[in-house]
Amino acid sequence: IETFYRDSWAEVDLSAVDYNIKQLKGRLPEEVGIYAVVKANAYGHGDLQIAKQALESGAKALAVSLLDEAIKLREAGIDAPILVMGWVRPGDVEIAARLDVSLTVFQKEWLEEVSRLDLPCTLKLHMKWDTGMGRIGIRSAEEMDILLNGISKNSMLELEAVFTHFATADEEDLDYFQVQSDRLEQLLNHLKKVWKDPVQIHTGNSAASMRFPEHMKHYVRFGISMYGLYPSEVVKREKPIDLHPSFSLKTRLIHVKKLAAGEFISYGATYETQEEEWIGTVPLGYADGWIRKLQGMEVLVDGKRLPIVGRICMDQFMIRLDQEYPLGTMVTLIGKDKGQQEISTDEVADYLDTINYEIPCMISYRVPRIYLKNGQIVEVDNSL
Amino acid sequence: IETFYRDSWAEVDLSAVDYNIKQLKGRLPEEVGIYAVVKANAYGHGDLQIAKQALESGAKALAVSLLDEAIKLREAGIDAPILVMGWVRPGDVEIAARLDVSLTVFQKEWLEEVSRLDLPCTLKLHMKWDTGMGRIGIRSAEEMDILLNGISKNSMLELEAVFTHFATADEEDLDYFQVQSDRLEQLLNHLKKVWKDPVQIHTGNSAASMRFPEHMKHYVRFGISMYGLYPSEVVKREKPIDLHPSFSLKTRLIHVKKLAAGEFISYGATYETQEEEWIGTVPLGYADGWIRKLQGMEVLVDGKRLPIVGRICMDQFMIRLDQEYPLGTMVTLIGKDKGQQEISTDEVADYLDTINYEIPCMISYRVPRIYLKNGQIVEVDNSL
Ligand SMILES: Cc1ncc(COP(=O)(O)O)c(CN[C@H](C)C(=O)O)c1O
Ligand SMILES: Cc1ncc(COP(=O)(O)O)c(CN[C@H](C)C(=O)O)c1O
Repeated sequence: IETFYRDSWAEVDLSAVDYNIKQLKGRLPEEVGIYAVVKANAYGHGDLQIAKQALESGAKALAVSLLDEAIKLREAGIDAPILVMGWVRPGDVEIAARLDVSLTVFQKEWLEEVSRLDLPCTLKLHMKWDTGMGRIGIRSAEEMDILLNGISKNSMLELEAVFTHFATADEEDLDYFQVQSDRLEQLLNHLKKVWKDPVQIHTGNSAASMRFPEHMKHYVRFGISMYGLYPSEVVKREKPIDLHPSFSLKTRLIHVKKLAAGEFISYGATYETQEEEWIGTVPLGYADGWIRKLQGMEVLVDGKRLPIVGRICMDQFMIRLDQEYPLGTMVTLIGKDKGQQEISTDEVADYLDTINYEIPCMISYRVPRIYLKNGQIVEVDNSL
Repeated sequence: IETFYRDSWAEVDLSAVDYNIKQLKGRLPEEVGIYAVVKANAYGHGDLQIAKQALESGAKALAVSLLDEAIKLREAGIDAPILVMGWVRPGDVEIAARLDVSLTVFQKEWLEEVSRLDLPCTLKLHMKWDTGMGRIGIRSAEEMDILLNGISKNSMLELEAVFTHFATADEEDLDYFQVQSDRLEQLLNHLKKVWKDPVQIHTGNSAASMRFPEHMKHYVRFGISMYGLYPSEVVKREKPIDLHPSFSLKTRLIHVKKLAAGEFISYGATYETQEEEWIGTVPLGYADGWIRKLQGMEVLVDGKRLPIVGRICMDQFMIRLDQEYPLGTMVTLIGKDKGQQEISTDEVADYLDTINYEIPCMISYRVPRIYLKNGQIVEVDNSL
């Protein structure tokens, strides 16, 4: 087990990931498979560890955003199907073919360039349909025909799947989701007419797959809820399946002092003690992803909510304590402490006026990740 | 030279770092040395690369925040003096001693624990004085005496330096800076009375060292301005020395499409095209540190400022283009494009209502760093 030399760390509960995947499987029709979305270092949770757990828990394949991410998984010995959902430079396509990594296709120019390559082995392609996300993908049957034509002419290219992505599947108002679903059906109807080979279809993200399981096609792409978070407040209230959060963030008091009234804390001297106050310092700051805007947010110490005071520094911040605590006392930034108190990722996201997805992504490389299974540490990853 | 498989990258100009260090040296009295502050992966710029450049450019020593960071530098073969400015667990102190890494001391309990260790070689200590930052450090002559006593009793401990840190050295109003300076002088007077061995003194950060060079002691700790940024608007206006920014952030258009009026962009369908619009997609998002709050911020394309439209996704975002552009067109998020236009790190920080320090720290591990010297690429670092 790797080690680290600081008193701050994230805990990733692989049993929670297992639970979440099994909950989704229980909700989906039996024949629907799961792509575990492990892009962005598995939303900050650790791509290798989450990929392995997801596959063990029944996911059939992995989805990432970048070819670099796929290469990393392959180099670590993972041989499950991997899809790169983003754009890959035509000049790098050969590497993908060699590593049996499936790529996303949606541009005529791209396909033409790729067709001119002398590929060493079959390249699997997933055609992306932009039904209203406005990001990447073809938008019409005509564009589809051009790509299908290009693919059918090259024996080294295989159309493995078609897919689309929903922009509002997590919202109360499902009008736009319906617009996207209708466009999807039109494109599927067209495909059925012109393409006779078998092809997978995958459409749903966490929101769509949990809310509308009966509408899912061959596969879903399961991201945020695999990590134990609901994609939105709306879905959280609906609670189509139960989820266990998998990410927590902890540190320890490394300094505790009593200050007289009228003393100042941190840069800019923005916080002034009003009376005698106990102030604790923790070794975690904005370079760890606990961004400066979290000034004023609460943390848990000994089961109690206590406020961050003064500006958050690059590597440290200060807490107003309610009493003296021994050095080494645990401080919970995300997760549960003793007692009933919990600070959820959602609460941190609310405080920052953002979405929960962004929070673990922000917790930087510098924070070691500790992996737990059934409450036991199974791995430690310190990228420093 | 390492490679990467995505069209987004940061450029770090080592010649700018060289320039900035030489500017500071020109401003400081000749006998004042420089600690290059390379904690937090050199504020996101890359610790090994910046450390080597800084030493080559005349810095005498390096300062980091964590023991992990010091170990990484030593393992890479850097043998300059290294100071860990943060707290290190007593149990890890032996590693520091072995690697000749200097540690920060400010607690009686800590010193007692360390004194009980059977150290393999001398441990160098820098005593931290909290003159008003309110973070870590001793606050009184009595505390100093206790530590000096503990150090003098153990022949394996060497007091190499004393230091303090200013909370407001970058501000217009210097009252609090004066309070800290006065407390510093009192503690120094006390030290002179009770401690006869030679001991280094280092006090100034970028702001103090540039603004008040004649008040600096043996060393300064040079962070933000080594990277080419002023610590505050006030210091930027005063401009005690000229600086060259060293960090830029670039990506490329990977998709360009014309949308009819009434189409929507990205999650939540928050942006609606008002007329026929050209929309570009770039492969960089909030998991790269281009956080969601940057929605609406401008980027440079072909010398022009164009807005980010719709929500920023985890790995991508969209731009409203003024015309069609070829795939692969460069998009500058931080830095200069052709022509006069520039988006500075300061502008990004202003948009986010934060300080420039936080911006390169936020740009995540996933963005490869390209190192330039005299305009030539000398190294590429892809941590994926
Ligand atoms: C194409 C695609 N499929 C599936 C997913 C999984 O979505 P979810 O995490 O909601 O289950 C994502 C995630 N997108 C991220 C969040 C983004 O692009 O911002 C995606 O881009
Ligand atoms: C003890 C200490 N010395 C020197 C520096 C360099 O400061 P500057 O970058 O302004 O030159 C820092 C940086 N501090 C960071 C910014 C922090 O703790 O937030 C520091 O903590």
